[in-house]
Amino acid sequence: MADTSSEAHEARGSSKRGRPRRGPDPERFQDIVDAAAKLMLDNGYSATSIQDIADAVGILKGSLYHYVRSKEDFLYRIIKDVYDAALEEIVPIAKSDRPALERLVAFVTAHVHFSIRHLTGFTIQIREFDRLSPERREEITAGGDVYVDALRGILQDGQEEGVVDRELDVRFTTVAILGELNYLTRWYSPTGPMAPDEMAARFAGLILGSVVSDKAVKAAGGLEKLRQDLLS
Amino acid sequence: MADTSSEAHEARGSSKRGRPRRGPDPERFQDIVDAAAKLMLDNGYSATSIQDIADAVGILKGSLYHYVRSKEDFLYRIIKDVYDAALEEIVPIAKSDRPALERLVAFVTAHVHFSIRHLTGFTIQIREFDRLSPERREEITAGGDVYVDALRGILQDGQEEGVVDRELDVRFTTVAILGELNYLTRWYSPTGPMAPDEMAARFAGLILGSVVSDKAVKAAGGLEKLRQDLLS
Repeated sequence: MADTSSEAHEARGSSKRGRPRRGPDPERFQDIVDAAAKLMLDNGYSATSIQDIADAVGILKGSLYHYVRSKEDFLYRIIKDVYDAALEEIVPIAKSDRPALERLVAFVTAHVHFSIRHLTGFTIQIREFDRLSPERREEITAGGDVYVDALRGILQDGQEEGVVDRELDVRFTTVAILGELNYLTRWYSPTGPMAPDEMAARFAGLILGSVVSDKAVKAAGGLEKLRQDLLS
Repeated sequence: MADTSSEAHEARGSSKRGRPRRGPDPERFQDIVDAAAKLMLDNGYSATSIQDIADAVGILKGSLYHYVRSKEDFLYRIIKDVYDAALEEIVPIAKSDRPALERLVAFVTAHVHFSIRHLTGFTIQIREFDRLSPERREEITAGGDVYVDALRGILQDGQEEGVVDRELDVRFTTVAILGELNYLTRWYSPTGPMAPDEMAARFAGLILGSVVSDKAVKAAGGLEKLRQDLLS
């Protein structure tokens, strides 16, 4: 590839002449991050090089260092963005003041739609999280705990309301539910037979059955009726 | 590393002299496969080289070609072994002639124990399956379908018996249940607070609630009682 990218000239020009370097263009950076994400999704983080990313967006490898210091910086940005978006979109739903089972359905629904909308970043987050440096993992896990805590809070509130089975191990159940939902990154296809709305409702139906108390089932007039009431 | 491995001498010696080459030692091969699996678990398939595997077992890289033709051959062997073992151990449980909910509990219990016992191979299978060649993926998926079909069969039988909710989408529910179970490869630790027996029972409890019909719940005298009856 010929050395014709404006970024490359700009970066080297400015450092030569000692002028204050212009900050990287955020829109251009987002395009590069998107290209990096696509490569990491298709080939895995380890098999994706800075050179591959440069080739995908048609700029010089050296020019990428205008935006990042390492390949891991791309991974961090991809994962951080998807985490932050999940916290912003879904945690408030978990923390509303509606009854616990309604919040559970709302949480599951929001999580499923979010996963599908952010499928690339979310899949990379799940697959490649361990490739981040320990410091960055720790930084992000603080946010991750907020997310896990939000679901755990719903189940605990449900136990206090008497609508979630008190025999449930809340910590284990939280992990099991998130696993069930997150595994869709392995099998979901936009061309599959089930629309996201139906998929979200079916997940919520399974998860409701997993956690409800006899009291909640009786009050609704049966498990099937309880699902109908909450999922309509 | 000095060229002192007996395999290397043997391999080159025999080809030079045109003697019939002795087949590879199956026990030695298993050790090498185990070392390859450990590396692929820790670093990922892409980041693991034939050289890394040779170094891990202390033989020459060239000597590995006594056993395999490519790195992918190791991946195939690891995944094939775990698939075959799962089919042999778990499918017969799914296909017994006991009532559907008992078979569901038995299937989940067997699957959880299997995953924990074969954690390295099972985790690699889940993470790296797509790195196999299309031909090998197809070969193995035939077996994978047998496995998925076994769980699907339990749910279908349960619907016929009236103990599994007829509103359930059996295909979707099968995928959701396997996702919930398989995701334990992401979070399970042998040093964690929950013993495998309890973990299997808790998974089975959640999954029972997800699928049971009102008829089954009523017959047992409630969802909590149904769990107690089936999990004791």
